[in-house]
Amino acid sequence: MSRVYNFSAGPSTLPEVVLQQAQAEMLEWRDSGMSVMEMSHRGKFFSKIAEELESDLRELLTVPDNYKVLFLQGGASAQFSLIPQNILNGKTKACYLNTGAWSEKAIQDAKVQCEVVVSASAEDKNFTYIPAQASWQLDADAAYLHYTANETIHGVEFQDIPDANGLTLVSDMSSNILSRPVDISKFGLIYAGTQKNMGPAGVTVVIVREDLVGHAAKGTPPVFDYAQQVKNGSMLNTPATYNWYLVGLVLKWLKAQGGIAAMEQRNVAKAAKLYEVIDQSDLYRNPVEKSVRSRMNVPFILKDDSLDKEFLNTAEANGLYELKGHRSVGGMRASIYNAMPQAGIDLLCDFLKEFERTH
Amino acid sequence: MSRVYNFSAGPSTLPEVVLQQAQAEMLEWRDSGMSVMEMSHRGKFFSKIAEELESDLRELLTVPDNYKVLFLQGGASAQFSLIPQNILNGKTKACYLNTGAWSEKAIQDAKVQCEVVVSASAEDKNFTYIPAQASWQLDADAAYLHYTANETIHGVEFQDIPDANGLTLVSDMSSNILSRPVDISKFGLIYAGTQKNMGPAGVTVVIVREDLVGHAAKGTPPVFDYAQQVKNGSMLNTPATYNWYLVGLVLKWLKAQGGIAAMEQRNVAKAAKLYEVIDQSDLYRNPVEKSVRSRMNVPFILKDDSLDKEFLNTAEANGLYELKGHRSVGGMRASIYNAMPQAGIDLLCDFLKEFERTH
Repeated sequence: MSRVYNFSAGPSTLPEVVLQQAQAEMLEWRDSGMSVMEMSHRGKFFSKIAEELESDLRELLTVPDNYKVLFLQGGASAQFSLIPQNILNGKTKACYLNTGAWSEKAIQDAKVQCEVVVSASAEDKNFTYIPAQASWQLDADAAYLHYTANETIHGVEFQDIPDANGLTLVSDMSSNILSRPVDISKFGLIYAGTQKNMGPAGVTVVIVREDLVGHAAKGTPPVFDYAQQVKNGSMLNTPATYNWYLVGLVLKWLKAQGGIAAMEQRNVAKAAKLYEVIDQSDLYRNPVEKSVRSRMNVPFILKDDSLDKEFLNTAEANGLYELKGHRSVGGMRASIYNAMPQAGIDLLCDFLKEFERTH
Repeated sequence: MSRVYNFSAGPSTLPEVVLQQAQAEMLEWRDSGMSVMEMSHRGKFFSKIAEELESDLRELLTVPDNYKVLFLQGGASAQFSLIPQNILNGKTKACYLNTGAWSEKAIQDAKVQCEVVVSASAEDKNFTYIPAQASWQLDADAAYLHYTANETIHGVEFQDIPDANGLTLVSDMSSNILSRPVDISKFGLIYAGTQKNMGPAGVTVVIVREDLVGHAAKGTPPVFDYAQQVKNGSMLNTPATYNWYLVGLVLKWLKAQGGIAAMEQRNVAKAAKLYEVIDQSDLYRNPVEKSVRSRMNVPFILKDDSLDKEFLNTAEANGLYELKGHRSVGGMRASIYNAMPQAGIDLLCDFLKEFERTH
């Protein structure tokens, strides 16, 4: 068969030209005589790849000079624990906003390290909204305020950076990093697994203000101490070199597309078209409050869930894959990250209408 | 140019047929309609890849049923800390053999977690031998005895499994796993980064006897708790899926070569030829005691180090790359893992003789 439109939530679809370049360079990168994955991480060839990776990310996100950029392992999930270990800095509690499944996981893991103050929760309405900022219970003694910028499972996205009322702001941006401009200077730390908007799985980006580095709790393993990784250029352990290279290719593709501002315009258009088809339908429904709907992950349910299986099978027959919703919420979900082209959205929208017409 | 012989210590050369298969499948794996790196880690396509990865590794290493196999992240370096966190099980000390640079790193990181008893050290002779077992100071109260099966930097390799005198035996096999048969049942835990003998960087294999699982220290982050990863099939966080796939391709290549026993025969022949050229030379010298010389990493020094630069340049001109020794010991090093073909050894040996003849 040929390539399909893949709406997987992560790992997820990548730009075809990136895959083509990786394919062309698989046996030999430029005139190096070897594949990128065979290179010493300290050699001249890979050093160039690593330098460009960081400088391209800094350029795309306009990262201020007083922020360090780390490329680590273990996913955002490892950071759920490593953030408190690294930045509590003697404090004993941290504030968390609970806006969906990924917030809940971050809270659960942070509780192993410190007292968690849940400053606001949308659990009462099944995570279909974001509680008004005026209602948040922020604790001035907390080391930081953590929020999940985009809830991959529940399809809820912060449209603006919240006001942390003086607390250090920390955000999990795994599923919307590089999809819209963001003012990094408002944050103490942002982090993201790469497997949604940046490349394959296996790299975790941590961007951290330098004054937060160097305060890891006693007993923190050296490879998980930000200060040690900063000192070693994220190479205290052998990094996932090929994954770095692939993320680098995605960043160069993003730059060629016009950067994040251009990408945001496309993402707005893509999401608007899909939500419009859902909202105008009698068969499909998205439960999220319109003002906080995610541009990246669009969950929807069919009015009659006995149609789910036929829906998925017919979608696959039309080249539309991985539309099944997360098992915790059911229904369907279309993840439409940067690399999902407008043509994929158009085909999905046509399919949604045709399936409704015939059912 | 074309592909060279790459003697890098890790990441290191891979079988060309593995790279060719990855190249052919880059845009679409079988009839999946997508690249492996775009697949959901919980989908039907990747589940098959993951299952075969574990079953092939179990087959190649004859892993007994009462051992769990984990595919983690963070390299062997992360395990330096995570092993004590997971298996001290209330004990306060662990024994370590110090046979080279990687033993030293393991000891240094373990010291953050517990009291380290250095049961033997070869530091007195610059890590060119392994102290006789009769001289080891084993502490019966220690939780385990740790040793580095092959010292990548110093070129020292245990030829037999040491007798731990009743202690749980733990071994870092990063640089010789799959290069020779090993009786897993003698160990409590073995671990290895994949970037030397198993594939690209980005995966760490941990094989652990099941009674050692489930005793992580309080405060251990869930993603670093073996019990949690066992329960979740190493997918508590999103795994480095493409790296798993590549390791899987290397394992299938190993099986096609006749498995580990066949591979050991080749490795013995490769190493013997290279050491013979070095030993018969007046220009090159390997300082390691013959009985414990590594089959995987062959360090050697030139009698006159002012020739080092010319040696490396001339080697590169002959298609022999990454022969520079580790900065901590200087000189040269040829890493000759499973994927280094006999033809690479032959060319290197011819070059060594020719360079000596002309200098």
